[in-house]
Amino acid sequence: MSDNIHDVIMIGAGPSALTAAVYTTRENLDTVLYEKATVGGLAASTDMVDNYPGFPNGVEGIVLAEQLQKQAERFGAVIEFGNVDSIRDEGAVKVVTVDDNEIKTRSILISTGSSYGKINVPGEAEHYGKGVHYCATCDGAFYKDKRLVVVGGGNSAIQEAIFLTRFAKHIDLLVRSTIKASEVLQRKLQKYEDEGKITVHLETSTNEIVATNGYVTHLHTTKEGKPMKVETDGVFIFAGLKPNTAFLKNSDIELDESGFIKTDLNMQTNIPGIFASGDVRSGATMQIACAVGEGATAAHSISKYLQS
Amino acid sequence: MSDNIHDVIMIGAGPSALTAAVYTTRENLDTVLYEKATVGGLAASTDMVDNYPGFPNGVEGIVLAEQLQKQAERFGAVIEFGNVDSIRDEGAVKVVTVDDNEIKTRSILISTGSSYGKINVPGEAEHYGKGVHYCATCDGAFYKDKRLVVVGGGNSAIQEAIFLTRFAKHIDLLVRSTIKASEVLQRKLQKYEDEGKITVHLETSTNEIVATNGYVTHLHTTKEGKPMKVETDGVFIFAGLKPNTAFLKNSDIELDESGFIKTDLNMQTNIPGIFASGDVRSGATMQIACAVGEGATAAHSISKYLQS
Repeated sequence: MSDNIHDVIMIGAGPSALTAAVYTTRENLDTVLYEKATVGGLAASTDMVDNYPGFPNGVEGIVLAEQLQKQAERFGAVIEFGNVDSIRDEGAVKVVTVDDNEIKTRSILISTGSSYGKINVPGEAEHYGKGVHYCATCDGAFYKDKRLVVVGGGNSAIQEAIFLTRFAKHIDLLVRSTIKASEVLQRKLQKYEDEGKITVHLETSTNEIVATNGYVTHLHTTKEGKPMKVETDGVFIFAGLKPNTAFLKNSDIELDESGFIKTDLNMQTNIPGIFASGDVRSGATMQIACAVGEGATAAHSISKYLQS
Repeated sequence: MSDNIHDVIMIGAGPSALTAAVYTTRENLDTVLYEKATVGGLAASTDMVDNYPGFPNGVEGIVLAEQLQKQAERFGAVIEFGNVDSIRDEGAVKVVTVDDNEIKTRSILISTGSSYGKINVPGEAEHYGKGVHYCATCDGAFYKDKRLVVVGGGNSAIQEAIFLTRFAKHIDLLVRSTIKASEVLQRKLQKYEDEGKITVHLETSTNEIVATNGYVTHLHTTKEGKPMKVETDGVFIFAGLKPNTAFLKNSDIELDESGFIKTDLNMQTNIPGIFASGDVRSGATMQIACAVGEGATAAHSISKYLQS
C-alpha cells in the first residue's frame, strides 16, 4: 500500500464524477477517478442528448462525455482505469481497493451510476439509442405521432407508457405475464385502452427487435404461445433499474431497498467523508443535468468536509 | 382574470427555470416564465464561466444564458417580462399576480435566485467580473499567485479568505469594524496571519475600487480614520447573500431564517404544487451546475405532481 493519501477518490467517471472533479481540482484538491468501463458513463453511449442545458440543438452523448473529460483533466483530474472491489472506512482515512491494490484517501465520492435492466434479445444492444430506449423522459419527445412499443408490466412500464401517449399516436404494451402495477395505475391504463391509445398484450414475450436501414421497423414476439409481428417505430424497455453498488456489499454504507445509496441534501452518505451523487443515489432522476448538479454539490460538501 | 389555467408558471428565467422549462415543455406541459430583469439571471452577467460542465475551455456567461433561452424556447417555453407581486395557493389552482394581473396555474416553480450584498462604492459595479467578485468557488482559480483583497468580517468572508490562499500569494482582509466570525475560524485565520499569507486590517472601510486599462490595480480605503491605498489584482466582497423572496412575504411558503425557501430533496416547498430551485433555495451552493440540476429535478417533480 502506498503511503500517499489522496484528498478525494471518485469511483466512476460519468458526468457526475467528472463535474465534481472540475470543482475539486479547481480548488487544488488532489483528485483521482477510477473508471471500470467508459469515461462519460451512460451519457457517452447516448446517441443524441436533447435536454442537457446549454446546448440548444442537443449534443451527441459522446461529444458531451469527451468535453466533460477534457474539462476535468484541464484542471488536473487524474482518470485511472480499474475495478473498485471494496471501500473501507477507517475514520479520517478511507481505503479503496482497486484491482487488489489498496489506495488511501481522505474522502470518497461514489458516482458509479446505475444500469437499465435488459431483456437480452437480438437487436436490443445493436439498436440502443436508435430505436431502442430505456428512458421516456430522455427520448420520448423523438416519437411525436409515431407508433411505439413499451415492454414491461410493472409500475414504471405502465406509468411511462401512459406518459409516452403525449407523443406517440399509438402504443403496444407487451407484458410477459400479467400486469404487476398498482390498482390506480391499472385503472388509468384502462382509460387509455378504452380510448384506443394503448393496446395491452398479456403473456407476450419479445424475441427480436428488427431494424431496416438503421430504423427499427418491427418486433418478433410470442403471444399466448403463437408468433406475432408488431410493427413500430421504436421500443421502450422497462425491466428495472440496477444501481452499480455490488462492491459496497461488505461496507456500512446505507442503501435503500433497491440498493441505491441514501444521502442527505448535501450528498453525504451515512458515513462522514463518503459522498454519493448521480444515478447511483436513492431518488436519482437518471438525468445528466441532475447528475452534474449533484456532482457540484458533492464537491462543495467534500471541500467543506476536508477543511473541517 | 383570464380563465386559462397554465400547467406551470415559473418565476424567474435564470438557468434553473430555463432548464426546468426545457423538461416541462418537452413533456408538452404549458409553461410560462416571468422574468423581471435579465433572462439568464446572474449567469448572464458573468464574464467567463469556467466550471459549467460541458464547456472544456469555459463559456461566456452571456453566451450560456442565450443558449439556455434558445433551448427552452425551442421546445415551446414562453418567456414574459413582468414583476411577480405575490402568489396565492387555492389548492389545485394557484394564482400568480404579475404587474396587477392575476394568472392561474396548476403548479409554480420559484427560481428567483439571490443577489450578492454590495458595498456600493465607485468601481464596484463597473468592474464586476473583471476584478470585482462575489464568489470564491467561481472565480478564485483565476488568481493563481496574484494579490487579492477580501472585503468583509463575517464567517463567509473569513472562510473564503482562507480558501483563496490556495490560489493567491497574499490576501489583504479589509474589515469595516471587528471580525464577527466564529472562534474556530478566528483561530484558523490567526494561523494564516502568522504565516504571512493574510494581513488583517480592522476598522478599515473601502472607498473606491480603481482599475487601469480594464484591470483592477488598487483600492482607496480609510483605516482607523486615515487614508490607505491597497494594491491588488482583484477584490472579493462578502457582504451577505440576499434571496429574492420579498414577494413571498404574505404567502405561507416556509423560509429559513435568512429568507431562503425550504424544500425537500424533490424541490417541493411546504405547499403541494409549489416548488423552488436554484439560488433561492435554502442550502443553495450558488453554482450554475447545481441550479440546472435542481431545475431538472423540480421539473420531474412537477410532472409527477400534475399527473397525480
